[in-house]
Amino acid sequence: MNVTELGQKARRAARSLGRATTAQKNAALLALADRLLLDQADILAANLRDLELARAAQMSASLQDRLLLNPSRLSGMAADLRQVAELPDPVGERFDETRLPNGLQLHKQRVPLGVLGVIYEARPNVTIDVAGLAIKTGNAVILRGGKETLHSNVALVSVIRSALESVGLPAEAVQYIDDPDRAHVLALLQLDEHVDMIIPRGGGGLHRFCKENSRIPVITGGVGICHLFVDQSADLDASLLVIHNAKTQRPSVCNALDTVLVHRAAAEFLPRLVQFLEPAGVVFRAHASALPFLQQDGRLPASVQPAGAEDFDTEWMSLVLGLKVVESIDEAIEHTNAHSLGHSDGILTADAVHAEQFVAEVDSAAVYVNASTRFTDGGQFGLGAEVAISTQRLHARGPMGLRELTTYKWVGVGQYHVRR
Amino acid sequence: MNVTELGQKARRAARSLGRATTAQKNAALLALADRLLLDQADILAANLRDLELARAAQMSASLQDRLLLNPSRLSGMAADLRQVAELPDPVGERFDETRLPNGLQLHKQRVPLGVLGVIYEARPNVTIDVAGLAIKTGNAVILRGGKETLHSNVALVSVIRSALESVGLPAEAVQYIDDPDRAHVLALLQLDEHVDMIIPRGGGGLHRFCKENSRIPVITGGVGICHLFVDQSADLDASLLVIHNAKTQRPSVCNALDTVLVHRAAAEFLPRLVQFLEPAGVVFRAHASALPFLQQDGRLPASVQPAGAEDFDTEWMSLVLGLKVVESIDEAIEHTNAHSLGHSDGILTADAVHAEQFVAEVDSAAVYVNASTRFTDGGQFGLGAEVAISTQRLHARGPMGLRELTTYKWVGVGQYHVRR
Repeated sequence: MNVTELGQKARRAARSLGRATTAQKNAALLALADRLLLDQADILAANLRDLELARAAQMSASLQDRLLLNPSRLSGMAADLRQVAELPDPVGERFDETRLPNGLQLHKQRVPLGVLGVIYEARPNVTIDVAGLAIKTGNAVILRGGKETLHSNVALVSVIRSALESVGLPAEAVQYIDDPDRAHVLALLQLDEHVDMIIPRGGGGLHRFCKENSRIPVITGGVGICHLFVDQSADLDASLLVIHNAKTQRPSVCNALDTVLVHRAAAEFLPRLVQFLEPAGVVFRAHASALPFLQQDGRLPASVQPAGAEDFDTEWMSLVLGLKVVESIDEAIEHTNAHSLGHSDGILTADAVHAEQFVAEVDSAAVYVNASTRFTDGGQFGLGAEVAISTQRLHARGPMGLRELTTYKWVGVGQYHVRR
Repeated sequence: MNVTELGQKARRAARSLGRATTAQKNAALLALADRLLLDQADILAANLRDLELARAAQMSASLQDRLLLNPSRLSGMAADLRQVAELPDPVGERFDETRLPNGLQLHKQRVPLGVLGVIYEARPNVTIDVAGLAIKTGNAVILRGGKETLHSNVALVSVIRSALESVGLPAEAVQYIDDPDRAHVLALLQLDEHVDMIIPRGGGGLHRFCKENSRIPVITGGVGICHLFVDQSADLDASLLVIHNAKTQRPSVCNALDTVLVHRAAAEFLPRLVQFLEPAGVVFRAHASALPFLQQDGRLPASVQPAGAEDFDTEWMSLVLGLKVVESIDEAIEHTNAHSLGHSDGILTADAVHAEQFVAEVDSAAVYVNASTRFTDGGQFGLGAEVAISTQRLHARGPMGLRELTTYKWVGVGQYHVRR
């Protein structure tokens, strides 16, 4: 396994894929969608080997389910590819057109980033998902999946490469690191000559490892400690519904709510909130400031316990919700900036000045006024496809769509112009 | 010297500077411009100490000149600051406004990047230049200048801080690493918690060091091996003028021309080019393919010598020009992509199809048709100010102005919207 060689091949293929027409790239996506169904016997046989190894290793049922492929999941992946084929192609788009005073015509032209390195875990659908987005944007990609899905991924990559070849595009545009040795991940992160962006898809540990070891820019993200602040002027009935949505609609994802801050003047909201969310199975970690409003006859409801020291710095990923009373919007903003991971935070208020202050001062990728944090999503935002949700600050912040897998070149067209 | 502490201070100050109004930030720039002149005795005294040390160390006259400050240079720096004050403030700009089908209003809002780390050499004017651009864009900055200008830089930073304080902005927004130990540069590069972007301003070695050791995204650039391809249909008289401009107007900078590629069908251009550029002091390194067209009576002109193995991979920074004959536009593009550092390259042609192919296939930050490579510059491109010229691909490519020192947040405004 020579990762440098994979990088060289990917770089060469990227040159040619970057020049492919939209029609060619879409043809590759559709061919791949077809082949996922036509070649499903091979893919499912490879997946079965992964499943057997998982069972032998006594992997948990939920993890086994994550790596399972079946005809219905393959159909879903094919449908996603057909949808990506229908999205507009960002490559070639002209923008910031201008004509300088000397007559030189100048514009920016969108081009592929080049070669992406994507490091991920568990779900084999990521292999197809990422390859599809890379093909659409004219980028080559070097994939490194989890060792639990090695056989599935190798089978899927072989299908992707056939699809590319079947429409005359370079198979080498999709490379896979099939040796589970972690040294190869390190080698990939050092390959700045051949790789332009690293996208880790996995837990905080993977993101940290990439950031600490990469010479290539890393898109970190996918984690969030999300806050909603119930201001004194908020519509409390409506706030119950927003918080219910943000906490319970899909508690295991990064834009799910973790903490509710309540203005002291609206603190009577707290017992109502507990009552409203209890039937959904939510349990609460209440800051000392919130306890007096939750105690009845000196006792807390069964679903509430006092918050521990780390609780407001925990991404719950489950039906746990932190509660805190704040004295002012300033305290709410300060708490949010101190504990948020810069993903999604919001204010519930009828006060336009407070709304503006919250939006201006909370430093997160997505800031909401009177809306659920669950909206932070490429699909919800109308981007068509989502590559990642970035919580870092350069290049792209928040949900990243196809456009965020591109860069631009400046094009200057003159009549033998010289600089004075 | 505790770089982590500097980082913490910068981060705190960035929060407050990021909320400053355009008027406040401009007031700081104008106050700084005034103080550069009012406090010039202190600044020049500090600069004199640097100059004395430079003389004692027998530094070359040209390097001594680089670090020299005098009243006229200080006036120039003040004038630049006043110009930056007049530029539009990118912070707060709204863009990509949309209303989702469910009624949620969504837009992106431009915000400062946060904290910049700038590592530079020699010229003390960079201290003022970078601090001015950072203040304008609401970013805090940690500066690390060369040890040759330590006293000058410390004096300048003290003036910057007074100017910030005089208008009620945090002095801590500008930090300076005043200990010459290189370990502190390494510490800065590892400070990803407190620093959002590293901008090296110096030679290739500095850029490489930053890229290899940084956990923070690095804006590499400032180097270029620039090409012009004289196509068979080019207006040869006009091409002489463009090449003369690109090579001789300022040979020591990164957008100066390094290599001319000539289509074989236009190879008679070569002796004309040599004759035209010789009076400007240009000397030539000719590829074997070009020699037959340059020899007269079996001998090369005195200004021409055969190119060595490394010559086409050398950024000349001087009046040396590489010459090569190519068989086709494809060979010209291939040579350019193989040897360019992705800065600025162009084609001289009357053929629209060739122009389009060159623009599409040459993968550089700036690609020109019938224009000098010297245009790649923030001022020329109308950006008002130039932070750097990026030859990396993420976030910003080519000349970077104020906007490129910002990022955005997504803002969603609803009426208690929930995700379905």
